[in-house]
Amino acid sequence: MSEPQTPDWVRDAVFYQIFPDRFARSDRVPKAAGLQPWGATPTIHGYQGGDLLGVSERLDYLEDLGVNAIYFTPVFQSASNHRYHTHDYSKVDPMLGGNAALRELLDRAHERGIRVVLDGVFNHCSRGFFPFHDLLENGQESAYIDWFHVEDFPLTAYHPDQPANYACWWGLHALPKFRIETPAVREFLWGVARSWIDFGIDGWRLDVPQEIDDDSFWREFRRRVKQGNPDAYIVGEIWGDGSRWLKGDMFDAVMNYIFTRACITFFIGKSLQRRHLEPEPLRDAQPADAREFAAQIDRMRGLYHPNVNAVLMNLLGSHDTARFRTLAGGDTSAVRLASLFQMTFPGAPCIYYGDEIGMEGGHEPASRGAFPWDESRWDLSLRDDIRRFTRLRHDEPALRRGSFETIFAEGSVFGFLRRLGDDAIVVLLNAGQDERIVTVALPKEIADGTMFADRLESGAIRLESGALRSVRVGPRSGRVLAAEARR
Amino acid sequence: MSEPQTPDWVRDAVFYQIFPDRFARSDRVPKAAGLQPWGATPTIHGYQGGDLLGVSERLDYLEDLGVNAIYFTPVFQSASNHRYHTHDYSKVDPMLGGNAALRELLDRAHERGIRVVLDGVFNHCSRGFFPFHDLLENGQESAYIDWFHVEDFPLTAYHPDQPANYACWWGLHALPKFRIETPAVREFLWGVARSWIDFGIDGWRLDVPQEIDDDSFWREFRRRVKQGNPDAYIVGEIWGDGSRWLKGDMFDAVMNYIFTRACITFFIGKSLQRRHLEPEPLRDAQPADAREFAAQIDRMRGLYHPNVNAVLMNLLGSHDTARFRTLAGGDTSAVRLASLFQMTFPGAPCIYYGDEIGMEGGHEPASRGAFPWDESRWDLSLRDDIRRFTRLRHDEPALRRGSFETIFAEGSVFGFLRRLGDDAIVVLLNAGQDERIVTVALPKEIADGTMFADRLESGAIRLESGALRSVRVGPRSGRVLAAEARR
Repeated sequence: MSEPQTPDWVRDAVFYQIFPDRFARSDRVPKAAGLQPWGATPTIHGYQGGDLLGVSERLDYLEDLGVNAIYFTPVFQSASNHRYHTHDYSKVDPMLGGNAALRELLDRAHERGIRVVLDGVFNHCSRGFFPFHDLLENGQESAYIDWFHVEDFPLTAYHPDQPANYACWWGLHALPKFRIETPAVREFLWGVARSWIDFGIDGWRLDVPQEIDDDSFWREFRRRVKQGNPDAYIVGEIWGDGSRWLKGDMFDAVMNYIFTRACITFFIGKSLQRRHLEPEPLRDAQPADAREFAAQIDRMRGLYHPNVNAVLMNLLGSHDTARFRTLAGGDTSAVRLASLFQMTFPGAPCIYYGDEIGMEGGHEPASRGAFPWDESRWDLSLRDDIRRFTRLRHDEPALRRGSFETIFAEGSVFGFLRRLGDDAIVVLLNAGQDERIVTVALPKEIADGTMFADRLESGAIRLESGALRSVRVGPRSGRVLAAEARR
Repeated sequence: MSEPQTPDWVRDAVFYQIFPDRFARSDRVPKAAGLQPWGATPTIHGYQGGDLLGVSERLDYLEDLGVNAIYFTPVFQSASNHRYHTHDYSKVDPMLGGNAALRELLDRAHERGIRVVLDGVFNHCSRGFFPFHDLLENGQESAYIDWFHVEDFPLTAYHPDQPANYACWWGLHALPKFRIETPAVREFLWGVARSWIDFGIDGWRLDVPQEIDDDSFWREFRRRVKQGNPDAYIVGEIWGDGSRWLKGDMFDAVMNYIFTRACITFFIGKSLQRRHLEPEPLRDAQPADAREFAAQIDRMRGLYHPNVNAVLMNLLGSHDTARFRTLAGGDTSAVRLASLFQMTFPGAPCIYYGDEIGMEGGHEPASRGAFPWDESRWDLSLRDDIRRFTRLRHDEPALRRGSFETIFAEGSVFGFLRRLGDDAIVVLLNAGQDERIVTVALPKEIADGTMFADRLESGAIRLESGALRSVRVGPRSGRVLAAEARR
């Protein structure tokens, strides 16, 4: 198989993940009567009334933060606040403003060069999704009898005291699993994927795609999507090794939870609040030193082709995890340091909404709080730093598209070099509580005498005898040193 | 209040009522796997796969029959074969071909001057309708808590062994009643009504509108609909006296089941199969002679303004009754004779699909059989007669727009005069088993010597001393005699 081709724009992307019910509300979208107050403690059920016009009205905020791509958790009509229980794949939820709101958002975002990726839930649907509803209402006489895996009738869909007598995701009555081998089901789902690409979205994040254990389904999925937009980004929710899907014939990338896990082990380290380590793939994360962290990073990078590594969605957390700050027991330095790593590492960083202002929250539903638009509640220092890091990434092509070499890994300090043409950038991250003074050898192609300017603070360091010598790295801090010769 | 203004075109309309799952199938609409065979004995549940492109492909048939308006029972997405359980008001059911099929049908029908009226179910929805589904999934935390009348949670929607703990139509769990006083609900329903008018439909037939006991709702409904299309026809399903809604501020007309009932009593008479007399408003129908029939017609005509009488939907049966032929124990002469009355009487006739070819069927679901497109199964003689009657109606403005006077009502013979300008048409209908020879006095404005030509057979009769004398009316037959002077 030829090497995987992945969308070029993702190499330059800084994503922001939005949980639509909780990011922003617009007065232009009529509000249902039964809403919880904005900012209420998140609960399993219940809405707080965020909408897509609210996002459209906050594009200044996102642009200022350095964001140029948005990944939305599902926006389609659904009777769940996270909207993973799809009721209608053809409609943006009316509470979010309907299809017209997505139209406006896409147009305004695209005007600013901001891309939009939606979340597709294709393994299962909700109990209210029309073909399943037809089974509920008609039993054996349903027209859609071959769309699901039914054991017997009547369905126990709304009898929580009885096991589901049809296949569903994780045994949850609410989530009937599609019978993917049925041609009408395949055509339906491919049609959904294509129709929203034609509507103008820039890609799909795929929910639990490994549950559809059928590579021919995903190959045709890719074909239909790329036919509509060759630049569309297809990123699967695969928590572990995604190589099966990343040969170039299925997905472009995965949500890189291996990255998340590595960041937890190193940047949080001993502060890790184990009770928040959910879901299962994160549970055995252990505090790691720089050497162990380097080994994790090395293994991770070895899994995929460089064209894939360049577009992995590198995230510190999501709607499916506790927030990074909360995992760190409230320590914002962990968020700061990990964000600096994220913004200087190959792959597309993805900021979980609100992490940049210091929002906290354990595993769902706690991590899905409403964004507080009152700035007095923000950690402005953290926000400013993360904004500096995103801008640095945008300013330095080597951080987005350069090669990656680990050049230092001892104790609490991890260091790496990014190179692109004549550009060379050294990043040093100290996860420890004490200042470290390190000497970092660089490859000999970089000439002695080269000045490395500090890109976060002032000052510069000269390369001497092949090394940057006695470089101070403050406690819980990082340095970004860029070779000046190239300028 | 000023006199009611009703759509002019309805005065010239001959409607054909179509039950979409059972009229015609097109190869262009993909068929679901779980369909019953076309022509299977109708059952409560289960689909036979009729669709709107099938109708579009049969417009020649309808046009040839003299039809220039179609009333469809519901076409919106629904998990019931009759589609009265609305799942999505914004979508034509995918099995019917979706919105695109309605688009084609409307365009092709309009090219031929055929109007299309849809069925609107606004009192209640289905259990799968999105806001109700939201209640099912979220309970107290639902955003749509004020859209329905809920007594307590959890809802017993899918617990047929328990009474429904929310208001629903006739206590049926499947049909939650809207809380019509909620502003969001009103706006939603008005929006639905308007959106399909804007799409191009020619009117709404309203399902059980008296269940929405709120005239202000219907007044605004009319305002929105007529704002979209001043010619739109609004016809309510009111089985009895509809005068409350027919003052000009709510509906234009009602489905005229008083007409149906009268026709059953006289044209079927003693052959009436009482076991098929459903639903309740028909149950006490008794065989009537011409005098009793005349009284029924007279009372009926006195209920409403002439502008309303001119556009009432006069039907012999519908999806909600047994077929007229079946009520008559299979006697096609009853269908023939009543159809002649229907086509010569003021108001818009409505043919229930298949009645014209002699289809049979008791009360639902039996009356909802699949139309047999194999002509060898048709009663061609009946079809040809009904076609003659519709053409006669189209040929004779007096039959559509003329005044109505009962001029004869004795024993088995009922006669009436339709006049428009100089046109005068005498209709004589003999419901008896024996030939009758009658003498019919006409108003003195019609000059002696006027020749009345037989418009169904050959021959003519001369008006002598103010009367048509010794007019033979065959058993179970009718005569239509049109004054020739005017020509």
